Amino acid sequence: MKKILVVGLGLIGGSLAMALQGFEDYEVVGAARSQSTYDKAVAKHAANRVTFDPAAELPGADVVILCQDPAGIIGFLRDNRDRFKPGCLVLDVCGVKTAVMDAAAEYLPDGVDFIGCHPMAGKEVSGIDNAEGTLFRNTHFIVTPGPRATAEHLDLLHRMAKYCQFGDVIETTPERHDEMIAYTSQMMHVIAVSVCDNEELFSCVGFEGGSFRDCTRVAALDPAMWTQLFTLNAPALSKIVSELEERIHQYRVAIENNDRETLCAMLASASNRKKQINLERARGDDVRPGF
Amino acid sequence: MKKILVVGLGLIGGSLAMALQGFEDYEVVGAARSQSTYDKAVAKHAANRVTFDPAAELPGADVVILCQDPAGIIGFLRDNRDRFKPGCLVLDVCGVKTAVMDAAAEYLPDGVDFIGCHPMAGKEVSGIDNAEGTLFRNTHFIVTPGPRATAEHLDLLHRMAKYCQFGDVIETTPERHDEMIAYTSQMMHVIAVSVCDNEELFSCVGFEGGSFRDCTRVAALDPAMWTQLFTLNAPALSKIVSELEERIHQYRVAIENNDRETLCAMLASASNRKKQINLERARGDDVRPGF
Repeated sequence: MKKILVVGLGLIGGSLAMALQGFEDYEVVGAARSQSTYDKAVAKHAANRVTFDPAAELPGADVVILCQDPAGIIGFLRDNRDRFKPGCLVLDVCGVKTAVMDAAAEYLPDGVDFIGCHPMAGKEVSGIDNAEGTLFRNTHFIVTPGPRATAEHLDLLHRMAKYCQFGDVIETTPERHDEMIAYTSQMMHVIAVSVCDNEELFSCVGFEGGSFRDCTRVAALDPAMWTQLFTLNAPALSKIVSELEERIHQYRVAIENNDRETLCAMLASASNRKKQINLERARGDDVRPGF
Repeated sequence: MKKILVVGLGLIGGSLAMALQGFEDYEVVGAARSQSTYDKAVAKHAANRVTFDPAAELPGADVVILCQDPAGIIGFLRDNRDRFKPGCLVLDVCGVKTAVMDAAAEYLPDGVDFIGCHPMAGKEVSGIDNAEGTLFRNTHFIVTPGPRATAEHLDLLHRMAKYCQFGDVIETTPERHDEMIAYTSQMMHVIAVSVCDNEELFSCVGFEGGSFRDCTRVAALDPAMWTQLFTLNAPALSKIVSELEERIHQYRVAIENNDRETLCAMLASASNRKKQINLERARGDDVRPGF
């Protein structure tokens, strides 16, 4: 029997370990760090077997899926570089790809194949308590294969994605992934926390619209994790946030100057773009949006 | 039989006319502007009676609900100041209150009672086609009575709100309403259009998270209407947007400087605020958020 080792049993790792059980002839071993997570993983059968010692499992693991935070993933690659089974496939699932791919290129020996992954799935809540085997159903699975990724491993990855019921698999480069995610996800989190940093937050109950609740939903984030995600993607994120600042400023100037003509033209252009992208998405697949 | 005249049968006006049918001993008359809206209103029985001529109905109307855009409401008050029935109650439902209350104070004769209203309900789609009598169920109804509002009219307003199944009625001043709405609604629209004004919008399909879709949802707005709403509330809106710009800028600087300590502290503070307000709302009523 072959072995998939899932390192880190939080929301994503726990859900992946659950989703992958029964995949072909693989045993799914989950590695927990805390006693609490270990006990819960055992209780909910999050993996075929649960361990505290991922390093001991590495020499026998055909597929390793790293589900820690970015610093945890990079540290794990560095500390365990000589323990990976030759010819194995190593994946990660975190939200930045260039920094992780760079670390994999630096630390992993030649015979180990690393493919960066980003399942576009999530919840507002975290941890093994909230893990579920159907979390990935109909979501996007973004993968960033390195230049040495083998066709055999890519094929295996696609079969695993299908088994987990991902809606599609999107291959791209780590750089393009990080640019896109800076725009579609990280910037949304910068916006959400910035909106919540206003003194009116606690006085606006009763006045909030659905737009307010939707926009601020992701502000209840994990500060340490997002500090890593933001700083590991600083060039792409600061570029796109700077563009946002500029555009918001242009709207404010038009409003302050009572420049209705400019303002209406800006709003018409933006709303048309949004209506057009809504139409394009409606024509597209029915993959649901990720987190 | 007494008469409620609903002027303007778009999404809100049409829904109000539908929701109010059967209220006490009132006939609900709906005034449409276009033939198309008239025909649809008749076909879906949006009112007890539909007319093209609201001015002709005014002398006999005990309650008048103005459901045009802000400029339409202000123009209607100006043009029909002498046609209102003495002692009648006039309401509006638009998203800015100070400008409308000021116009009412300027134009309406002493015996006419004006109360500004803002039902916190809506949809991404507009028009009589999307009107429905249950639109207001469990939503907030914000009202800004003028200094001369009578207890009798306030009581009538509360009975109407209850009949329409609003979740609650929140009384405030026009100025406070406009400050709050600048923050909770108008700024969300500025953010949504600013995000959509980026060249990446059309290349990010497959990379968008739920946060992106939620944040940009309201960008598909009506440019002429929102130009009015923004400019009629320019002081409050530009103040709050300026605060947002400053805060987003602080995040960008911390990210660019790789200042993890500051960034983590900012994120911890904001996420704690959001978690706290989530708890307060969970303890509160079950009124659903408006648009």
